[in-house]
Amino acid sequence: MRYQLGTDQIPEAWFNVAAHLPEPPAPPIHPGTGNPVGPEDLAPLFPMALIGQEVSTAAWVDIPGEVLDVLALWRPTPLVRARRLERALDTPARIYYKDESVSPAGSHKPNTAVPQVFYNKVEGITRIATETGAGQWGSALAYACQTFGLDCQIYMVAASYHQKPYRRVLIETWGGHVVPSPSDRTEAGRTVLKRDPDCSGSLGIAISEAVEDAATRPDTHYSLGSVLNHVLLHQTVIGLEAKRQLEQAGEGLPDVVIGSCGGGSNLAGIALPFVPHRSEGVRLVAVEPSACPTLTAGRYEYDFGDEAGMTPKLLMYTLGHGFIPPPIHAGGLRYHGDAPIICNLVKNGWMQAIAYPQGKVFEAAIQFARTQGPVPAPETAHAIRGAIDEALAAREAGQERVILFNYSGHGLLDLGAYDDFLHGRLVDV
Amino acid sequence: MRYQLGTDQIPEAWFNVAAHLPEPPAPPIHPGTGNPVGPEDLAPLFPMALIGQEVSTAAWVDIPGEVLDVLALWRPTPLVRARRLERALDTPARIYYKDESVSPAGSHKPNTAVPQVFYNKVEGITRIATETGAGQWGSALAYACQTFGLDCQIYMVAASYHQKPYRRVLIETWGGHVVPSPSDRTEAGRTVLKRDPDCSGSLGIAISEAVEDAATRPDTHYSLGSVLNHVLLHQTVIGLEAKRQLEQAGEGLPDVVIGSCGGGSNLAGIALPFVPHRSEGVRLVAVEPSACPTLTAGRYEYDFGDEAGMTPKLLMYTLGHGFIPPPIHAGGLRYHGDAPIICNLVKNGWMQAIAYPQGKVFEAAIQFARTQGPVPAPETAHAIRGAIDEALAAREAGQERVILFNYSGHGLLDLGAYDDFLHGRLVDV
Repeated sequence: MRYQLGTDQIPEAWFNVAAHLPEPPAPPIHPGTGNPVGPEDLAPLFPMALIGQEVSTAAWVDIPGEVLDVLALWRPTPLVRARRLERALDTPARIYYKDESVSPAGSHKPNTAVPQVFYNKVEGITRIATETGAGQWGSALAYACQTFGLDCQIYMVAASYHQKPYRRVLIETWGGHVVPSPSDRTEAGRTVLKRDPDCSGSLGIAISEAVEDAATRPDTHYSLGSVLNHVLLHQTVIGLEAKRQLEQAGEGLPDVVIGSCGGGSNLAGIALPFVPHRSEGVRLVAVEPSACPTLTAGRYEYDFGDEAGMTPKLLMYTLGHGFIPPPIHAGGLRYHGDAPIICNLVKNGWMQAIAYPQGKVFEAAIQFARTQGPVPAPETAHAIRGAIDEALAAREAGQERVILFNYSGHGLLDLGAYDDFLHGRLVDV
Repeated sequence: MRYQLGTDQIPEAWFNVAAHLPEPPAPPIHPGTGNPVGPEDLAPLFPMALIGQEVSTAAWVDIPGEVLDVLALWRPTPLVRARRLERALDTPARIYYKDESVSPAGSHKPNTAVPQVFYNKVEGITRIATETGAGQWGSALAYACQTFGLDCQIYMVAASYHQKPYRRVLIETWGGHVVPSPSDRTEAGRTVLKRDPDCSGSLGIAISEAVEDAATRPDTHYSLGSVLNHVLLHQTVIGLEAKRQLEQAGEGLPDVVIGSCGGGSNLAGIALPFVPHRSEGVRLVAVEPSACPTLTAGRYEYDFGDEAGMTPKLLMYTLGHGFIPPPIHAGGLRYHGDAPIICNLVKNGWMQAIAYPQGKVFEAAIQFARTQGPVPAPETAHAIRGAIDEALAAREAGQERVILFNYSGHGLLDLGAYDDFLHGRLVDV
């Protein structure tokens, strides 16, 4: 059963959780001065509108009409009751998922790529640079740039560029320019290549290249796909729609809201609008890979956002900015830190975090595909594992429970991982 | 703008065009006796319910509730007005497309896979065998078999099995068994392998293997993804929904209805419900590749359905059952014949057919992706090319026109073709 809102029912404002957090957000710290970062520090990289959203305490932030027009190409996304999965689990729980895989890029990422590109365009920027690992973020940004007529330059980790060509092709189909990183286009890239001409790259190097590209060209800004407050803000359309759709389904509030957590943006998107309902018993759950257990085994302290140590420091759970996670298939969850807003909630006990090895995660993905049909992204399958275990717990307890999770993206460009799992080549690391 | 019907608005009966055809359907001919094929000839391969539908003259055929329950997982599919494409073309035409890519398998194929598996299950069959080329049909049938708990055995053309592993993985994710064809599982396969151990296979050989598998096992039936009357019947939900959605959009009948044509099933799905409206000025258009110009350059005569010449003969346009089309990227359109119902319409001037080289088709695909967002399957891009040219003709004529086309599937598993096109490696053959 799917619950579908009309295109006139897309939320017209983003929900800002700032005023509802257990403790006030800690400011980013300038890596050179040790002082809080000010708007002027960020201005070479981001438009003022986004810098303003980063520190806004307004309860709601209006979504511009031009952004709504584009979001309406796939939003509101469906809320689906997973009855066949419920039946297979023989659970009294009712499982709902919000299907963010229906966007052109196949994930929740365009929800923030579109407004980010829009605000840049309004401020006269004509070109955006970013980094991408496996390509989820890069493809979403290329799509958004194409929509508003901006150039898009993407530094893609060289290993992924060569081994996972499909998302590179997606970027190019939408007119984006993509080079393997390290590249000879930047000082940062050339330095690495001089040291190691065969370097297969890392997200840290790619970030350095994209930031340098943006900082050294007046027509160009930088764009980030997760972690920062304004990115999480843009994703709240997910939870706001889900709330209305649960009402449409005759449900009150959910008992538990679940999302996978890499940088935190898809989790924030579905969970933040439910933070004010914590007192009414809504539990929030972050699911991460045990191979990169930031929230469950990291330390809560100021750390750099990138591996190279060039960005402002953020107060968050971190495994250390030098942490290199093993090469699990959920590439989007391989991040040493997490969004400060998510960490704030977890630190104060307002959100629970659990970690799973990838074998258990792929078992859940297969069970979902064989009951409901769609094949989830490996990242998304973490949330599915969490939802299935909640449903099994409800059966044990003999309780009806309403479970809501974010189906953040499809796995059609990740079928190599399924091939490994189905043929016994996937190992838990 | 998307037009979305409620899940309670899926059509409850399929539209049977038999009573509306320009001339009565010609019966299939038994290759041995030369007589019309009877139900008893088909019974080893198909359930009686489908054999009945193949020759039914009823105006409507009820869709079983168990089938509707599964179709409701993704149906009704959205009807989308392609306003951004219209703007890019500067056309007074209004372009609508029916988005069949939202099914679990990413195409229209599950519309018939689901009822076919259901009717087999009702008659006690526990296993289905079929062939697949690039894997669109195989993945749809594996999904449907998983849904109803039947085993699924797929003979996949060896070249595709090895070169396009992603749809093979999709089949396995849904629990299907897939072997490269020719295989050593059948007499037909073993004969070919004895002659040529490195044979890379063909659809003809794969059909022979699947038919032999089904004919020699009492628990197993055979299943076909296009061409036959009952397959086209099942696809009419597409056009029936589109009709209601055009009303929802405030339109009357469309001026032109367009579909790509390989075997004819997706084209039939959107076009057949509009056949009775021909007298009201609705034009129907089939778009095929000029590399396999069945309708535009074939002869209208009885020919075998397979390359090996083992199936009943059908009255259709054909390039000859020995015709081997060049390896274009739209694998689903590489068929020497076409559905007899479609050929009947074309022969009598009730449907127009046009052919395009694949370079022009990929230009249309890129223009669609860069305006609307989604990346179409190469097969689907043929219909897009047709729709764009209709919209340009409307501009030339200074006429408002309502154009409806079938977006039969996404291209996320065909990005290699886009890579070739974008980097100048795609040639017109």
